[in-house]
Amino acid sequence: MEQHVLTMQDALARLDEYWTGRGCLKVQPMNTEVGAGTLNPATFLRVLGPEPWRVAYVEPSVRPDDSRYGENPNRIQCHTQYQVILKPEPGDPQQLYLGSLEALGIDVRAHDVRFVEDNWASPALGAWGLGWEVWLDGLEITQFTYFQQAGGVNLDPVAVELTYGVERILMALQGVRHFKDIAYADGVTYGEVFGQAEYEMSRYYLDDADVAANRTLLELYTAEAQRMIDERLPVPAYSYVLKCSQTFNVLDARGAVSTAERAAAFARMRRLAAGVAQLWMQRRAELGHPLGVVATPEPAQAAGLPVEANDGPRRFVLEVGTEEMAPAEAASAREQLDRLVTDALAGTRLTHGPVAVYATPRRLVAVVEAVAGREEDHTRLVRGPKVAAAFDAAGAPTAAAAGFARANGVAVEELERVDVGGTEHLALRRHEPGRSAVVALTEALGGTVAALRSAKNMRWSDPQLAFTRPIRWLLALWGDQVVPLRVSTLAAGRTTWVLRTADHPAVTVDSAEALLDQLAAAGIVLDQARRREAIVAAATDLAASAGGTVDVDGEAALIDQVTYLVEAPTPLLGRFDPGYLDLPEAVLATVMRKHQRYLPVRDASGTLQPCFIAIANGPVDVAQVRAGNEAVLRARYEDAAFFHRADLGVPPATMRDRLAKLTFTDKLGSMLERADRVADLAGTLAEVSQPTPDDRRVLDRARSLVKFDLGSQMVTELTSLTGLMAREYALAAGEPQPVATALFEAELPRHTGDALPTTLPGALLSLADRLDVLTGLAATVGLPTGSSDPFALRRAALGLLAVHRRHPALAGLALSEGLRHAADRQPVDVTPQRLAEIGQFLTGRLEQVLTEEGEPVDRIRAVLVHADRPGRVDAILAQLHKLIDRPEFRRLAETIQRARRIVPAGTGIAYDVAALTEPAEVALHGVLVRTRQAAAGVADLEQFTDATTDLSVAVAEFFDQVFVMSDDPAVRAARLGLLAGVAELGGSILAWDQLRI
Amino acid sequence: MEQHVLTMQDALARLDEYWTGRGCLKVQPMNTEVGAGTLNPATFLRVLGPEPWRVAYVEPSVRPDDSRYGENPNRIQCHTQYQVILKPEPGDPQQLYLGSLEALGIDVRAHDVRFVEDNWASPALGAWGLGWEVWLDGLEITQFTYFQQAGGVNLDPVAVELTYGVERILMALQGVRHFKDIAYADGVTYGEVFGQAEYEMSRYYLDDADVAANRTLLELYTAEAQRMIDERLPVPAYSYVLKCSQTFNVLDARGAVSTAERAAAFARMRRLAAGVAQLWMQRRAELGHPLGVVATPEPAQAAGLPVEANDGPRRFVLEVGTEEMAPAEAASAREQLDRLVTDALAGTRLTHGPVAVYATPRRLVAVVEAVAGREEDHTRLVRGPKVAAAFDAAGAPTAAAAGFARANGVAVEELERVDVGGTEHLALRRHEPGRSAVVALTEALGGTVAALRSAKNMRWSDPQLAFTRPIRWLLALWGDQVVPLRVSTLAAGRTTWVLRTADHPAVTVDSAEALLDQLAAAGIVLDQARRREAIVAAATDLAASAGGTVDVDGEAALIDQVTYLVEAPTPLLGRFDPGYLDLPEAVLATVMRKHQRYLPVRDASGTLQPCFIAIANGPVDVAQVRAGNEAVLRARYEDAAFFHRADLGVPPATMRDRLAKLTFTDKLGSMLERADRVADLAGTLAEVSQPTPDDRRVLDRARSLVKFDLGSQMVTELTSLTGLMAREYALAAGEPQPVATALFEAELPRHTGDALPTTLPGALLSLADRLDVLTGLAATVGLPTGSSDPFALRRAALGLLAVHRRHPALAGLALSEGLRHAADRQPVDVTPQRLAEIGQFLTGRLEQVLTEEGEPVDRIRAVLVHADRPGRVDAILAQLHKLIDRPEFRRLAETIQRARRIVPAGTGIAYDVAALTEPAEVALHGVLVRTRQAAAGVADLEQFTDATTDLSVAVAEFFDQVFVMSDDPAVRAARLGLLAGVAELGGSILAWDQLRI
Repeated sequence: MEQHVLTMQDALARLDEYWTGRGCLKVQPMNTEVGAGTLNPATFLRVLGPEPWRVAYVEPSVRPDDSRYGENPNRIQCHTQYQVILKPEPGDPQQLYLGSLEALGIDVRAHDVRFVEDNWASPALGAWGLGWEVWLDGLEITQFTYFQQAGGVNLDPVAVELTYGVERILMALQGVRHFKDIAYADGVTYGEVFGQAEYEMSRYYLDDADVAANRTLLELYTAEAQRMIDERLPVPAYSYVLKCSQTFNVLDARGAVSTAERAAAFARMRRLAAGVAQLWMQRRAELGHPLGVVATPEPAQAAGLPVEANDGPRRFVLEVGTEEMAPAEAASAREQLDRLVTDALAGTRLTHGPVAVYATPRRLVAVVEAVAGREEDHTRLVRGPKVAAAFDAAGAPTAAAAGFARANGVAVEELERVDVGGTEHLALRRHEPGRSAVVALTEALGGTVAALRSAKNMRWSDPQLAFTRPIRWLLALWGDQVVPLRVSTLAAGRTTWVLRTADHPAVTVDSAEALLDQLAAAGIVLDQARRREAIVAAATDLAASAGGTVDVDGEAALIDQVTYLVEAPTPLLGRFDPGYLDLPEAVLATVMRKHQRYLPVRDASGTLQPCFIAIANGPVDVAQVRAGNEAVLRARYEDAAFFHRADLGVPPATMRDRLAKLTFTDKLGSMLERADRVADLAGTLAEVSQPTPDDRRVLDRARSLVKFDLGSQMVTELTSLTGLMAREYALAAGEPQPVATALFEAELPRHTGDALPTTLPGALLSLADRLDVLTGLAATVGLPTGSSDPFALRRAALGLLAVHRRHPALAGLALSEGLRHAADRQPVDVTPQRLAEIGQFLTGRLEQVLTEEGEPVDRIRAVLVHADRPGRVDAILAQLHKLIDRPEFRRLAETIQRARRIVPAGTGIAYDVAALTEPAEVALHGVLVRTRQAAAGVADLEQFTDATTDLSVAVAEFFDQVFVMSDDPAVRAARLGLLAGVAELGGSILAWDQLRI
Repeated sequence: MEQHVLTMQDALARLDEYWTGRGCLKVQPMNTEVGAGTLNPATFLRVLGPEPWRVAYVEPSVRPDDSRYGENPNRIQCHTQYQVILKPEPGDPQQLYLGSLEALGIDVRAHDVRFVEDNWASPALGAWGLGWEVWLDGLEITQFTYFQQAGGVNLDPVAVELTYGVERILMALQGVRHFKDIAYADGVTYGEVFGQAEYEMSRYYLDDADVAANRTLLELYTAEAQRMIDERLPVPAYSYVLKCSQTFNVLDARGAVSTAERAAAFARMRRLAAGVAQLWMQRRAELGHPLGVVATPEPAQAAGLPVEANDGPRRFVLEVGTEEMAPAEAASAREQLDRLVTDALAGTRLTHGPVAVYATPRRLVAVVEAVAGREEDHTRLVRGPKVAAAFDAAGAPTAAAAGFARANGVAVEELERVDVGGTEHLALRRHEPGRSAVVALTEALGGTVAALRSAKNMRWSDPQLAFTRPIRWLLALWGDQVVPLRVSTLAAGRTTWVLRTADHPAVTVDSAEALLDQLAAAGIVLDQARRREAIVAAATDLAASAGGTVDVDGEAALIDQVTYLVEAPTPLLGRFDPGYLDLPEAVLATVMRKHQRYLPVRDASGTLQPCFIAIANGPVDVAQVRAGNEAVLRARYEDAAFFHRADLGVPPATMRDRLAKLTFTDKLGSMLERADRVADLAGTLAEVSQPTPDDRRVLDRARSLVKFDLGSQMVTELTSLTGLMAREYALAAGEPQPVATALFEAELPRHTGDALPTTLPGALLSLADRLDVLTGLAATVGLPTGSSDPFALRRAALGLLAVHRRHPALAGLALSEGLRHAADRQPVDVTPQRLAEIGQFLTGRLEQVLTEEGEPVDRIRAVLVHADRPGRVDAILAQLHKLIDRPEFRRLAETIQRARRIVPAGTGIAYDVAALTEPAEVALHGVLVRTRQAAAGVADLEQFTDATTDLSVAVAEFFDQVFVMSDDPAVRAARLGLLAGVAELGGSILAWDQLRI
């Protein structure tokens, strides 16, 4: 067997051979430490500017933070990247990439190779791109990116960057479980060659690097980089930028970077990188672009439209072929295309049947049934000048009339007269013959494809289009005729592309009616609903075969996602070692769902079973793909087990100290500072809620540990387990159950629909957390506007409101007070103005929540006077529901509303009693005095109603018998004052005006 | 054509394929800047210790000092090395290496591939090795080294290091003249890919690197390296050693390294490298040597000796097959083997004919004619105890006699009595039959091969042998029988290896008589004398074919060298562009001779012709080899022309400033400081010589420029042109001819037999130069002892003496004065003791020179009283020659000698005149007083002789009539005093005692 193993050095040689055979230069790794192949100037500098560039190289990538002394099977401080840059992107980079896997001996037909959305950004370099992580049977083996920006410069042309994770690929190909066991060359393992260096460099990065020395290095490197930019030498400047980056990473791994330093260092590196990038482009231009300039692709040539008449009706299909879209984007694009096509058809006079639009990761297909062969003929009335202005006194046509006739190519005599809204106009009746379906569709749909947009759009080699991923082909057929759409460089035809691994990936489609069958014949389930059903059915069967079930409702979101990850679903059942079931269930399920998109299998009682369902794409070799996915899950669980063991060895308090190394935001300090603020704030908030001594003890202990699990390896890896791991590790460390619960609940709710804290300590911590985040971010980043909410402040606000409403003990806590306390603890100034805005933001969210809960708008508005105490809103609203149909309440409301309508704004409630003379007004004065006394301090709506029983009658009699607007100003003022007293009643309980009675 | 060019990246891929196919790991270049592949830890660390290691990698090697902004066609600040390490050395590394050339498509049979001595040392790393530069048609393409030591540690096993100069190889293979024109990949040149970086990094290294920042970096790196050694982490420690090295090189290229800093930096790096090396070896031992341990090769098994009798006499041959020896070593080894074989034969009783020993670069062959088939039988007398001690009083054998008999395996009765020097001894007469020739030769020559030694011996995989280069095979035949010598792992046989490029390199030799024919049949001219003749004859013919001649006498040393560079000489005539004849002739000829070992061709008038004769080895494709050699010479001349042009653009004074960057020695400062000392000293010396005003002006101008050409690019490249280029460039800069001459003559004589300064300014500068070097080095390094004279102080001394003798104007200059002036200017203390030693050293050299000039020893010794003024030595010696046969002189000499013999040492010349009474002594007193007056201050031997005319007679009468040793002490003292006065006469002119009259 030995000689048949593809060794690591052989694999690298094969990649070299493959890519140099495809026009890539082979260059050497950077001769200063870099964290990734992207940093090599052969990428960072060469993706800039108009010159073509194809390159391949190995890059030993140093990540001090990944140092593990060689102990972790999958984590290496210096891992090997194989990097390829194709500039301009060649139009078929995915196909080229698959060829490279075949060069490595991977049968891409047997395996499940998938392109799963993964975008990339390096803030320090001002660089980002969109693309995928490539999965081989569930294992991420390559980062595939359409590079969009570097050094803050938009890239034109766009380059494709492929970054292979060499050790991971080799571990998979060789079936080894620890990187040290990789066969590096015949008879020599990776560990034998690199093991000592891995250990020693880990020691340096984690334990032994001199912090002061590295700090000085960072300063020196920064200064040299800037000097070289000033000297207009981008190459040495960039090499110093790289040294800055590495040194920063060393300091970071040593835990020596304060928040302020990190922010400053990143800003400096970003500035330097931008300087280098601009300078490089200038210098290349000055050198006359030695490698030439990439030509802009030509637009597709417009085809002549067919002139013959069409029989009809026939089906119309429009297929937009893309590279793999993310699930949410595919779903959104489907809806957009539906609307766009429907609108476009409405702009024609073609009769047609239903419009259906389908989406897979790689295509959007609009299907319109029964589209007529021709538009109806049509007569259109073109309105001209008014007749009154069309002829002069002599009855001769004026210039206006003559002009209109001339513009329409007729004589004035040919114009007729029509009545438009009662005025007579000259007009021309123009007969317009219907266009053929092909012509009409071509003209109508011309802008449709270019109009598609996603949340984040990218550029590729097309000079005009921008979309979530490249659009690679168009198919448009009406019946058996091509509808010759032209969209930038693309021309619609009758070719579709089925699975890449098909024997004949390009398929000629005879007619619109045949498309769906031809796709189905290629295994593609076009209709997302049917695809989902197929997945659910097969998954349920597979689970049953293992004696379990899939929680189809509970996993609905995941199933939705999976539905858009495949075109030709091939569900399969995999298993894992039951020993891993000792890990926390949340860990197991999270790894399956979030990382691997596997469906967990449970038994009747809901207990996790040692198996999973993966959904492969296309007709793969199930046994191989299963084995691959099982190996990936095993490695992930092995990692998790490693983290779990490591974490259990660290006391929570110690773990919490690590938060000092985690930045919250540049301006708001470290996570430790944030946790301290939350703890402190929760203590203050507790005073209002009057906790029991037990609760107070639990709260104080939980405060001292809150957020400690952010310092665990498990949460570092699996962020979504925040809180869950806190509970787990707190219990393991011997903390009482209530403390563990409070630590968990501090993170609730984590998302819409999530559980809320059930205990007061948990609620107080949760509230404090959200108050902190809202005040801090509102003061530094600002409140969310439009669709942008990068820090999820809306979610924080909703959580805050939900927690407040859930806990009666918190009813007395005014949010404005909480915000003020939170603001006092921020490291930045939070102005009263800003606090008021946050209050309005919260009120807005509360109104929205109540609306979504189905409350009538008028009642919501009426109770929002209590928005500062959301719990009270609920209470008053509940009373309102009870009272609203009672006559006495309705009368009361009408009475107050009537008084408010009459009393001008600004009228004082003081009045001269002596001026009141009429019996009814004197009586009202008496009732009012009594009522005010009875209602004073009443906050309960029901009590208030009871306390005002006499008022309605008294007011009614007043209006019957007294004319308020007396000519005598003194009298009038007194009467209005009397009514103002009525209007003012209950104003702190309800916004009476808002009620629709 | 385009697609048939082997591109640079293809070449690298082929080397990868070749070497990984031979068990090498492929690893990546170092991810911090290094100056050579050797520095990569995959070499420096892995050659240490007992683990096996085979590795190949590309190493972009950064040499800041080689920065030329990309303008020089052959000089690059970052050139590409391809590095291979084979540990242990595999026994046939040259053959493996040739295979790699074939992998590059080089037909090694058609080309002239040669292994030319080139040893390597890195003082900063405590590393060195012996080996070759490999020539391809005269072009150096690879450094081939048997690594002997790294970090000061002896390497065991020894590794072979191959370092390919990739750009040079590709330039040759592609036939391009500038590195920028190398086809790096299809359609892309090296310049297009790397040109900008080459320019910008040159800018950084030469002009823009911040000196202060780099100084600080050097300190920080040094400290981190030492800290990591202290932490026992050799891997990070070593990475910081590399950063130290690179930073030092940057500072050096910026001209910012003072002499003191350089010495300190090198010492630090050496210490750190040694620390890393030792630590690495310890750590590998602690890790249990993960890659295993290389087994020590087994000694060759001893063969049974043949017992049968031999017919006689037959020729005996012993062939010692080696890898390429340097010419001097081959010649020396030839002599050694001659002596060793002759001695060994003398230790046998084999009769034999003449012994002849031949040598080529790859073999030493001893040929002994007519070696008898057997030794003569022989009777040997073994002496026992004296008879007197052999028998007791009773006549019974004593223990001594019994013991002697027993030890010799006979009875006492069998012993006989023999007379030894008059004493009777017991003795045994032992008959010893002669051994067969094979047995006798085997036994006699057992130690011969192991006894071979060279000036610098190396180790290879053999556990016991050490020699100038590895010994790879032994052939030993007596007639047709193998003489089964065993030398460590080698066993002599009947196989020889002819040219590596032969169809069948291994040849079975039938008999000793056949060997020479079989070698000749393979094209090998074994006899060095015949090889030389063949070269001379062919070269002469070739030169004639071009209408020129070779200066066979003038080029004798070069021809001797070339004779030992080939086994099968194939002289060929190459040509170069006559345009290059515009360069100074010295440049042209030096490049040919020193760099390329080409014979220059001249016309009848001695003018250089645009052609050359190269001597290839073996039956090459002459056209190809010629073309290759022509291209190499062209490139070298192109380089020279480049330097010439560049140098001409720099005024001499500016060029001289560059000397500040050149170190003379650690303790003696920079070359500029040395030049300043020389200039200053020459000014002082001039005062004694009383120059004419013209000479003084010339001297002063020349002093201000002296040694400026050391700052030229030409001399940096071609050191032997020192002085010549000074003259050239001075004239070009408009200096007067006398100044140019003085600057040239300042460097004379450059070697034994070289011309001497003809002008006084030149002589003064030359003298000052040598005085400076002698005092400085004697004070810091010491005077040469034995054969070691690394700074060529003997040559300096000889030059100094020759110049002094050549110039009468200098006769008045005492060397001791000159040395004292020189000493005063040294930056170190020169003790009077040390100055005296230098004086003695000079006197010793002068005596040697005069002896070699054929002067009689007695006269030399007699005139050496003037050794401090060598010019005076010559003058007195000349007078001595004239006077020596004149009777009056002989009498005078005898008189003085006689007086000296009688007067005891320490006798004062004062005497009591009153004590003199005898007429003869009174007369002598009178004559002596007169003579002393006449001779006072006379320094001329002839005048002295004239002035002492009366003395001899007076002394003779004195001796006749006076008995010196009177019993009266006062009288005796006066007479001895009188004679002391005679003895003392002329003592400052001659050492009269020494004369043999």
